[in-house]
Amino acid sequence: MIKVGILGATGAVGQRFVQLLARHPWFELTALCASDRSATKCYREVVNWRLDVAFPDSIGDLIVRRTDPKELDDVSLVFSALPADIASKVEVDCAKAGIGVCSNASSHRMEKHIPLVIPEVNPEHLELIDAQRKEGWDGFIVTNPNCSTIMLSTSLTPIQPLGFSDVKVATMQAISGAGFQGVAAMSIYDNVIPYIGEEEEKMERETLKILGTLKGDSVTDAPIQVSASCHRVPVIDGHTMAVWVNTPASPEKVKDAFRNYVPKISGLPSLPKKSLELLLEKDRPQPRLDRNRGDGMTVSVGRIREGIRYITMGHNTIRGAAGASVLNAELISQRKYL
Amino acid sequence: MIKVGILGATGAVGQRFVQLLARHPWFELTALCASDRSATKCYREVVNWRLDVAFPDSIGDLIVRRTDPKELDDVSLVFSALPADIASKVEVDCAKAGIGVCSNASSHRMEKHIPLVIPEVNPEHLELIDAQRKEGWDGFIVTNPNCSTIMLSTSLTPIQPLGFSDVKVATMQAISGAGFQGVAAMSIYDNVIPYIGEEEEKMERETLKILGTLKGDSVTDAPIQVSASCHRVPVIDGHTMAVWVNTPASPEKVKDAFRNYVPKISGLPSLPKKSLELLLEKDRPQPRLDRNRGDGMTVSVGRIREGIRYITMGHNTIRGAAGASVLNAELISQRKYL
Amino acid sequence: MIKVGILGATGAVGQRFVQLLARHPWFELTALCASDRSATKCYREVVNWRLDVAFPDSIGDLIVRRTDPKELDDVSLVFSALPADIASKVEVDCAKAGIGVCSNASSHRMEKHIPLVIPEVNPEHLELIDAQRKEGWDGFIVTNPNCSTIMLSTSLTPIQPLGFSDVKVATMQAISGAGFQGVAAMSIYDNVIPYIGEEEEKMERETLKILGTLKGDSVTDAPIQVSASCHRVPVIDGHTMAVWVNTPASPEKVKDAFRNYVPKISGLPSLPKKSLELLLEKDRPQPRLDRNRGDGMTVSVGRIREGIRYITMGHNTIRGAAGASVLNAELISQRKYL
Amino acid sequence: MIKVGILGATGAVGQRFVQLLARHPWFELTALCASDRSATKCYREVVNWRLDVAFPDSIGDLIVRRTDPKELDDVSLVFSALPADIASKVEVDCAKAGIGVCSNASSHRMEKHIPLVIPEVNPEHLELIDAQRKEGWDGFIVTNPNCSTIMLSTSLTPIQPLGFSDVKVATMQAISGAGFQGVAAMSIYDNVIPYIGEEEEKMERETLKILGTLKGDSVTDAPIQVSASCHRVPVIDGHTMAVWVNTPASPEKVKDAFRNYVPKISGLPSLPKKSLELLLEKDRPQPRLDRNRGDGMTVSVGRIREGIRYITMGHNTIRGAAGASVLNAELISQRKYL
Repeated sequence: MIKVGILGATGAVGQRFVQLLARHPWFELTALCASDRSATKCYREVVNWRLDVAFPDSIGDLIVRRTDPKELDDVSLVFSALPADIASKVEVDCAKAGIGVCSNASSHRMEKHIPLVIPEVNPEHLELIDAQRKEGWDGFIVTNPNCSTIMLSTSLTPIQPLGFSDVKVATMQAISGAGFQGVAAMSIYDNVIPYIGEEEEKMERETLKILGTLKGDSVTDAPIQVSASCHRVPVIDGHTMAVWVNTPASPEKVKDAFRNYVPKISGLPSLPKKSLELLLEKDRPQPRLDRNRGDGMTVSVGRIREGIRYITMGHNTIRGAAGASVLNAELISQRKYL
Repeated sequence: MIKVGILGATGAVGQRFVQLLARHPWFELTALCASDRSATKCYREVVNWRLDVAFPDSIGDLIVRRTDPKELDDVSLVFSALPADIASKVEVDCAKAGIGVCSNASSHRMEKHIPLVIPEVNPEHLELIDAQRKEGWDGFIVTNPNCSTIMLSTSLTPIQPLGFSDVKVATMQAISGAGFQGVAAMSIYDNVIPYIGEEEEKMERETLKILGTLKGDSVTDAPIQVSASCHRVPVIDGHTMAVWVNTPASPEKVKDAFRNYVPKISGLPSLPKKSLELLLEKDRPQPRLDRNRGDGMTVSVGRIREGIRYITMGHNTIRGAAGASVLNAELISQRKYL
Repeated sequence: MIKVGILGATGAVGQRFVQLLARHPWFELTALCASDRSATKCYREVVNWRLDVAFPDSIGDLIVRRTDPKELDDVSLVFSALPADIASKVEVDCAKAGIGVCSNASSHRMEKHIPLVIPEVNPEHLELIDAQRKEGWDGFIVTNPNCSTIMLSTSLTPIQPLGFSDVKVATMQAISGAGFQGVAAMSIYDNVIPYIGEEEEKMERETLKILGTLKGDSVTDAPIQVSASCHRVPVIDGHTMAVWVNTPASPEKVKDAFRNYVPKISGLPSLPKKSLELLLEKDRPQPRLDRNRGDGMTVSVGRIREGIRYITMGHNTIRGAAGASVLNAELISQRKYL
Repeated sequence: MIKVGILGATGAVGQRFVQLLARHPWFELTALCASDRSATKCYREVVNWRLDVAFPDSIGDLIVRRTDPKELDDVSLVFSALPADIASKVEVDCAKAGIGVCSNASSHRMEKHIPLVIPEVNPEHLELIDAQRKEGWDGFIVTNPNCSTIMLSTSLTPIQPLGFSDVKVATMQAISGAGFQGVAAMSIYDNVIPYIGEEEEKMERETLKILGTLKGDSVTDAPIQVSASCHRVPVIDGHTMAVWVNTPASPEKVKDAFRNYVPKISGLPSLPKKSLELLLEKDRPQPRLDRNRGDGMTVSVGRIREGIRYITMGHNTIRGAAGASVLNAELISQRKYL
């Protein structure tokens, strides 16, 4: 068992990490870091557990630590659910201190030597860890993409061989994406908020890196363009997206591509039976009915029409955040980077 | 005062007609038609009033009539909130019987001699009434577009002079668009339904006719293409849309076009102060906060970005349905077709 | 393995039965009955699966049967999710035909020889089956209470020894309680409906029978009075209730009673670890966070205050419907009535 | 015209004050006070207008002032929408400085010489202002009750002559009651929160004072007991309550009392046509359909049943907050206390 920790363990994504790691077959969760205010208290006491799955009792008695690499010498890997501004420095400190970091924060995603990975899509980008090692880090930082980008990129992967250069995507994103306190009820109830700070920019640049090609110690962006329009809707979990791709392929070809898609990896505990699932009903996927497919790790696609237009949807705090990081860590472990 | 009636007076759009016509300066509401089951009872008794504005007491005592032109010889104009399958025959019967019909139903919208009108956008299409008269109808049928099409077409009108050929639109539509019983709470709560029957097709073809050119006794479609993806979200009233238009104009030019837009008409009681309102806040328009602008008759636009991308939003059962029909009737009256 | 069937297998409660029985350790689900329209087709084809748990593939290929005891000679027990008007006759026909019926329908609950059972609370009432046998039925009918009544009665059970005679209860009930199509989104969104047909009457009379005493071949009502006010709120699953009980006991005594409560039964597969769970946080139980405790079978209580006032909450379609029937069936099986 | 100001002008209740006072026939809104951060800027700039009624342009250019009596020497009356902790001192400072204060804050409600007034119910309590004057205040403080207490007390008033001693009330309160940022969407969506800080205590003590008797310079509490259970539900505006009153009167008598109820006052601009409206439909009142009755100033009652049980509902930020204060100010003005 590999000993692991969580940075930012009390927030929305932090709680999902706890849920996913409490009974993990490869990782033993031993360190929970949070703000100085929470440190030295037991987790049960400081966390306001807000998930609708049972609180994992086995974790409740862990003593919360400060967010500091010095407090983490008993773990070889940490999962970061830190806000971007804090993650920026702490994650580098951890990597320098010899700790591997699987980060959900956006701070380092676009840096040259930092892999931005969806295991099924671009596992080979992990090799950038070697470039980090050359820079003198004993640990490493591996990032997963923004939640919406994960659904979009996963759904684009089977189409990539058919050719396309231009993507338009309109998102309908869940409120959990903004954290437990991120959206006031008065703001979103009976409403749509057609703006999410920095979200469109993230989707537009991260997708290019993920679908890009590893050359030496950096990634060359995929030669495509993404134009995003991002909107918050009154849904608890699950980001839904309407996508247009200007591919010459027919709807039937695209359906076949989805149907026959095989991820580039296998053998990871959190890998769902289907990483991408094609739904044939005329009104699916729907977040409430489909977000829990594959224990929240499956990206669903449907309504493939002329255009090419389609719908994609996935669980934003599992597939789109904590689950994505855990899957990255499993891949890292499988490929012996730990 | 012109005496008018309503067909389908008890449903969601029918009630909006009642609300808008109860104290109208030009029209006197004297006839309410509904199913045979309701006929001969007083309106107050048969309607299950579901709007959050007060029930207009003055209308409550009207005796409901059967949906039959023979029962309508005291009115010169009827507003139709009938379902498409029933509207198809009844509206023609009325037109033949000398009654003007302002219809919100989709049945006749695409027919050659039937004008599909947004008064601010294509008032000149009303001249198709002359073609109807040549066919021997004493009355006429004038239709308004599908709710989503009205917001889209209104927002495209100021951009049309700048040139564009290709439109993509993703809608986030309110539940009231499906009528009072149209969407089960279990279907839409905490959910998005990425499908609305026939909605995409309506948006794609109606927009071309509205923005088209009247030539003789028919309309030549605008030389553009519309690709729509339609979705239901948990919002009560107000359809929000993300639009992409491939125009060469810059965002600033498009903003100017929105800002300086002048409708082709004036002097109608239901015409709002601004038919199109440009909002400059970074997160607007929002349905709950902006749907009641101009008493529900204003279409809002915002977030004009490179792409060109923008958001448009309007009240679907007022601007997008009953209010659209009433405005058509006012234009018809102003242009002396009654 | 005991072969069992479901009557009304496609509705909201029917689907919950399928979910709970698909992998049951004692029961093998072999018969699914539905309307004549669905009969002879395979279940997968006719069901519109609306639960957010995965559709059980193993059940999908079962051929749906007509709702008729003649079609059920291979099962010894059926679960009834029929509407009350249909249940009334069909359930008796089944019992006469030698089939055991565990019914969630209200039709027979108040009949003299029909047990109305919550296994943890009044398992001894099952003996009424003997009275049914004396009447010549080879099978039997055992009912579970109305959903709200189950939470209320379970929470009253530990207080009963402390003495009380008067109960007031205000419910805040989930929309799933009305079935998939039961509540229109336009009716309940941003709203409370302070009326549920027959619900108050059911709570007021069923509670007395459940807490009553078996004497010979009938039950004497508990000498208490229940006054209910029932309301629908915009919650998907989970009925919440504010309860007043005029007991002489102090809040601390009542808390102790809840804390030390031991059900009258044990050894049943669907019995949760805690049938009744006392929550000590000041703002719990909450439906979204607590309805899945004990896989949806735990009734939560909290906020015990002077008055005595407290809150109780449980999952209405699991603990309050399908799960209640399944637990009854397990008790019946354990007590050798099959 | 009497010049007036608002303390706490940018919050949820503050905005409602602005809406109600922008075009008031007796009061001229000239002063808007907010935090030091907002002071000296124009209101339009600092307010994040969140109501679904149009922003009153005429008010937008007012320069926001600091919350300090010294800045208010041009107004004779201020409306306070301050949080209780700040209101505590500022309101007294204003009263001492000769300014009348109509406060929605809870700080002073229970003080001996401070009237707690619902104009229709206990206008005579205003005489406590004389006691304040004797203490040397040139101005005064008059408070309105907590939002839920207003609906409850108003509905109890017609029953008081019939006799009762014991009230139980379960509330289903709207999210706007907690202010724009008060409730996170993740907390209340698909949920009920069965706890609102201090709310039960407020209802239990304020009701007794409102229904109490003015004797000399203080109020003797009404000889009744109120037991409240308060819950937040996913509704935007409108508090709904289930009430039990142990009166000997029959439901028909209570209905008559509601039907024939006449407020103790008349001639005030904000007084609705009906302060209390009896609805006879079996499923009313409902917040979304009935909260705007009487422009939000009418308290609705319905479902009077044996028990006596009934439902009452009113708009919490209009009738229950800003509108209540404005009505108090009108009464004060009518009775020449200004």
